[in-house]
Amino acid sequence: MSNFEPRRDGRFPLRALAGLLLISGCGALSAAPAGHNLMPAPESLQYAAGRLAVTPLFRVAVHGHDDARLRDGLFRLLRAAEERTGLTFPHTLAGGFALAEDATRASLVIECGGPAPAVPALGEDESYTLGVTATQAVLQAPTVTGVLRGCATLQQLLQADSAGWFLPAVSINDHPRFPWRGLMIDVCRHWQPLEVIKRNLDGMALVKLNVLHLHLTENQGFRIESRKFPRLHELGSDGLYFTQQEMREIIAYAAARGIRVVPEFDIPGHATAWVVGHPELASAPGPYVIEREWGVFDPVLDPTNPRVYEVLDGFLGEMAALFPDPYIHIGGDENNGVQWNASPRIQTYIKERNLRDNAGLHAYFNTRVHAILAKYGKQLIGWDEILHPDLPAGSVVHSWRGPEGIADATKHGFETILSNGYYIDLNHPGWEYYLNDPVPAGTALTAAQQKLVLGGEATMWSEWVTPETIDSRIWPRTAAIAERLWSPREVRDVPDMYRRLGFVSRRLEETGLRHESYLEPALRRLAGDQAAPAALAALRDFVDLLEPVRDYQRGRQQPGANQLTPLTDLVDCTRPDGAAARAFAAAVEACVFAPAPTGADFNVVSRQLAAWQQTAGILGPGLAGQSPRLLEAAPLVRALGEAGAAGRAAVQLLVAGQAPAAGWLQARLAELDLAAQPHAAAELSVMAPLRLLVVAAAEQDQRKTLGADAWRRHVQDMARPAVQP
Amino acid sequence: MSNFEPRRDGRFPLRALAGLLLISGCGALSAAPAGHNLMPAPESLQYAAGRLAVTPLFRVAVHGHDDARLRDGLFRLLRAAEERTGLTFPHTLAGGFALAEDATRASLVIECGGPAPAVPALGEDESYTLGVTATQAVLQAPTVTGVLRGCATLQQLLQADSAGWFLPAVSINDHPRFPWRGLMIDVCRHWQPLEVIKRNLDGMALVKLNVLHLHLTENQGFRIESRKFPRLHELGSDGLYFTQQEMREIIAYAAARGIRVVPEFDIPGHATAWVVGHPELASAPGPYVIEREWGVFDPVLDPTNPRVYEVLDGFLGEMAALFPDPYIHIGGDENNGVQWNASPRIQTYIKERNLRDNAGLHAYFNTRVHAILAKYGKQLIGWDEILHPDLPAGSVVHSWRGPEGIADATKHGFETILSNGYYIDLNHPGWEYYLNDPVPAGTALTAAQQKLVLGGEATMWSEWVTPETIDSRIWPRTAAIAERLWSPREVRDVPDMYRRLGFVSRRLEETGLRHESYLEPALRRLAGDQAAPAALAALRDFVDLLEPVRDYQRGRQQPGANQLTPLTDLVDCTRPDGAAARAFAAAVEACVFAPAPTGADFNVVSRQLAAWQQTAGILGPGLAGQSPRLLEAAPLVRALGEAGAAGRAAVQLLVAGQAPAAGWLQARLAELDLAAQPHAAAELSVMAPLRLLVVAAAEQDQRKTLGADAWRRHVQDMARPAVQP
Repeated sequence: MSNFEPRRDGRFPLRALAGLLLISGCGALSAAPAGHNLMPAPESLQYAAGRLAVTPLFRVAVHGHDDARLRDGLFRLLRAAEERTGLTFPHTLAGGFALAEDATRASLVIECGGPAPAVPALGEDESYTLGVTATQAVLQAPTVTGVLRGCATLQQLLQADSAGWFLPAVSINDHPRFPWRGLMIDVCRHWQPLEVIKRNLDGMALVKLNVLHLHLTENQGFRIESRKFPRLHELGSDGLYFTQQEMREIIAYAAARGIRVVPEFDIPGHATAWVVGHPELASAPGPYVIEREWGVFDPVLDPTNPRVYEVLDGFLGEMAALFPDPYIHIGGDENNGVQWNASPRIQTYIKERNLRDNAGLHAYFNTRVHAILAKYGKQLIGWDEILHPDLPAGSVVHSWRGPEGIADATKHGFETILSNGYYIDLNHPGWEYYLNDPVPAGTALTAAQQKLVLGGEATMWSEWVTPETIDSRIWPRTAAIAERLWSPREVRDVPDMYRRLGFVSRRLEETGLRHESYLEPALRRLAGDQAAPAALAALRDFVDLLEPVRDYQRGRQQPGANQLTPLTDLVDCTRPDGAAARAFAAAVEACVFAPAPTGADFNVVSRQLAAWQQTAGILGPGLAGQSPRLLEAAPLVRALGEAGAAGRAAVQLLVAGQAPAAGWLQARLAELDLAAQPHAAAELSVMAPLRLLVVAAAEQDQRKTLGADAWRRHVQDMARPAVQP
Repeated sequence: MSNFEPRRDGRFPLRALAGLLLISGCGALSAAPAGHNLMPAPESLQYAAGRLAVTPLFRVAVHGHDDARLRDGLFRLLRAAEERTGLTFPHTLAGGFALAEDATRASLVIECGGPAPAVPALGEDESYTLGVTATQAVLQAPTVTGVLRGCATLQQLLQADSAGWFLPAVSINDHPRFPWRGLMIDVCRHWQPLEVIKRNLDGMALVKLNVLHLHLTENQGFRIESRKFPRLHELGSDGLYFTQQEMREIIAYAAARGIRVVPEFDIPGHATAWVVGHPELASAPGPYVIEREWGVFDPVLDPTNPRVYEVLDGFLGEMAALFPDPYIHIGGDENNGVQWNASPRIQTYIKERNLRDNAGLHAYFNTRVHAILAKYGKQLIGWDEILHPDLPAGSVVHSWRGPEGIADATKHGFETILSNGYYIDLNHPGWEYYLNDPVPAGTALTAAQQKLVLGGEATMWSEWVTPETIDSRIWPRTAAIAERLWSPREVRDVPDMYRRLGFVSRRLEETGLRHESYLEPALRRLAGDQAAPAALAALRDFVDLLEPVRDYQRGRQQPGANQLTPLTDLVDCTRPDGAAARAFAAAVEACVFAPAPTGADFNVVSRQLAAWQQTAGILGPGLAGQSPRLLEAAPLVRALGEAGAAGRAAVQLLVAGQAPAAGWLQARLAELDLAAQPHAAAELSVMAPLRLLVVAAAEQDQRKTLGADAWRRHVQDMARPAVQP
């Protein structure tokens, strides 16, 4: 499901729009007086007057149902609050938190109606209400899972000002829009060990995601211990796999947070690592070795071989016992047909059984696998290639290839989840994922079809991430997807999403995620021992103006790179959807489109542009000469300096109210086109607002003629780059 | 062995000297043209002309003995080099590194004489030689352990300049001075999980430490699973303990790096967590709860109770099977005698057996424990309180209380290791530990006694560290201790040690340690959501000028703090022995003691002082008002501003060559005394050079009278603060 070729994808608006849509500062986080800082936004929220002070006397009472999962969640909340505030709440001698016996004197009362299912379940009740007054907070929920969701809200609601820590007085009613809100992590292409999974589960819990989908088998690795068929993980993993004990630990860790764990065993394609230890299961003779490259490969299980079903029966039976969730994902994507086409035996089988073609054979295989899963009480889920007239009822279709996937699956009565448009590994900005709605306003789906849309999953394919960098590719953008899947459809104010994303990113960091903190040591390593502090600071500023190339460009930028390549390059120190670029875009729009801009209105932009040139100046001649690792940055450093110069020239014209000479705009745009070129798999993230700036400078004499609104559209149109081939 | 009360310790010179001794920049790391960047320094090293380029064609040949441990060590080296350089070396299809078949064409040839012992052993051969020429590097060692030590040297030798990555041409002969070079980690007072231990083992391997001493039982926690007596860990640990499976993983991880694992089970004192689950073993009736506070407590095993020896026999037998090292540490320290004194039965026992006193009873207990250990083939090691006429021969005495410990133990024929003077938890600067030699030049020990000194251990007691902060208390200072224990006695140039410490700190970070990278997220948490980037940067500069209070002061500064207190305060963001303070001290000495200082000589110091005042200005009024967490920093911010003002006044006088008015010096020193006061368990680390500056300003008219050298001593004497009560 992670393809290496780019594809047309109507869901993603032109990149050039990105900078123009967004307003967000990158300084201190800014509270909205009338808004809140929560993500996902609750179904309803009303502020009242007052606040509940959070002091060392903060004490909780538990009413109604009480159990270990509730206590664990509550204690995690209190411990997180202690670490953040530095306060120490009342403890028991046993080391836990002392609960209040007398609810009337408790700071927080939890009223829980009953237990959650032992295994977190699709569609279980996750609702809660939260009322905070100046004297007490009350969290009510029908189940323990609702209490956990309310605790995540409380963790985000806690804040401070000069008067101290507090919860604002508020009344919240909340429940999720979709029952399936997932994050898929591919632990195969690059291995991701236990601690990566655990800290991401903590992050998921904070934004109320409730499904961890683990992609466990792939051409590049077989990542789960099989005691029945140990050659699978022993020969297929380089020794990098989850033991069953570790997987039980993950499942328990997830369950404690109200999160399901759905395993994926990708068959019949994406199966190289399956057949390293068991070549007899493949559709062509072996031997096979673990695949190190990225792409779609030929090895595929042989649906005509009875031994394949014996092994699958044994293996899936073993996994069905290990994973308590009723769903097992069988992949089913991207079988390229090469081995099946080349096998006369397989083609004869297709004819003899009237299976028509490879797709028919694939459907036949799925039917057999479906029967095996059913025997073990499991439901089948697969990527959207499994959709076929013969797909057994009750299967779930996981849409990845295009927006039509959901419509197709639901039309045939299948439940479905959406990942098309949630491919966070492709490095698109958060707003694109955020606006991608599984059931958008004005959808063509019938009411019956809409009911079949269970939700969606962010997908983190791991071609280009290591345990060091993966958090920076998942977070904070996945919080925006979490909001799309939890919050009401109408919650889609992009600037406000970004404003709140700043807060939730801090909270995510406090849970132990390293999406920000991985950067400093990575930059030190890149800069080398001889870099002075000023050069390191300039490098930090520089990478904040870069982003990794999008979609599947990195493979073309680094053609020799594969699973064994160290991912410690400049591009690994850049992050998608940076706040600095958003801030610059906002500053450009604020001055260019101000009603009657004066010179002072351009000060923020001018300072930014001067700072870029200073950064480029520090990095340009010196640093690359000291560290061979920075040579690859040189073209981008030069581009930043030139882009800054073009921007400053534009600002001068705008401030002077002076039209440029003929040909000026074309020359500047040509320069910017060059500066926008990616190098070393990274590119400048500030090109759209720069184009806007030079177009505005060149077209300023049109302003009065056209009027403000039409001129704005005119400038935006002209600033949009031609679509890349 | 972690006491909570301060004690006289003649090994630590007056703190005021610290700033004056050291010369080290805090900018880019500086290579010494004639020196090297290795730590520990090899026994001998000669540079030659030329360098061996390290390119993507770098390939290794293994000659002679070859085994899995050698391969693992070699592959770790190559992988670390790939991640640091961004190069990809030749790989095999199986995912490992491709070795060169033809040694003449290999970049690195490893010639290994034979295997290392399956369990790393005290006194095993760790020697190696390394020769690098322009065409090839050759690493020769009699054993695999020597190869591992040579690989650590290679990892540090790899460097870059504008021409690329290379190993300098060099000839190294190396072997350790002491066979026991350890790091003790207390995992009891604050639990330290598997990942903390693993990353510290990686750090240890880089600086050639070879003993991980795990302090596994304490009043505050019983941290190892006992299958024979599960109540020990089940009731004594809050669920925070190593399973035996995890401990086997640690032991294997350590062995792969040539590191022994010596467990400590502290008895008969420090035993509260033992008796939570087994109160019948204590010398007074229970029940007991896990201790949350710090200090010395009463609970002690009852040496008169036969059941105690039954349990110890069972438990130590179980541990003897789990831990392959021949040494088991039984603690034996700080039994306060309260329970024994209070028990008529125990006192009667002492009289009836002619044991004389509590010390005699303790020695009797040790004799019985010694016999149990001997039965399981283990040797006893204990803290120096175990030294007693009845201590069985063959025991090892671990000296912690004072410099006399080694002399006392060796006088009685016992082998000994030194930790007195290596208490890194006490936050002293690295140079103090560095100059603390187990067998210093001019030692009074006889040759026979000297042979009994096995080495030493840095001790990381964990009252005040969490998994988040512990690395910053261990590293990089422990690398200086590692050099003391590995390198020749004559290697003791403090400025050069600090110069090289800068390099090794980077390499330690690259192994995964977080002694630097923990700081940024900790500061973000402390500063809160409303802090602007400039305020955060100022806070970063500010904590670089602070250090945590030394010795046992923190308990007095934070009297209510215990095991349950979140350690996320300002002090937890400060680090001992900061480079900024060293750099400032060096800058002050450079200008004050310059032969004929001009105004320009004071520029560096003036800029520093101005920067402090700016930092104080940013933090002073604004930040504390935004985050309640920073209120505790206010007195230190004020102190920094005032200290900066005093320093600037001194510089003005010095530049003007003008003596101050009468009383000026006394007023400034009084101000600096106030500014030097700790607050919130932190204190300014730049007071010594500031005192020097104001004294020099006040006494400048003495310069010509006294002559340069005498004046220097005069100023230094006057600048030294009165010894604190």
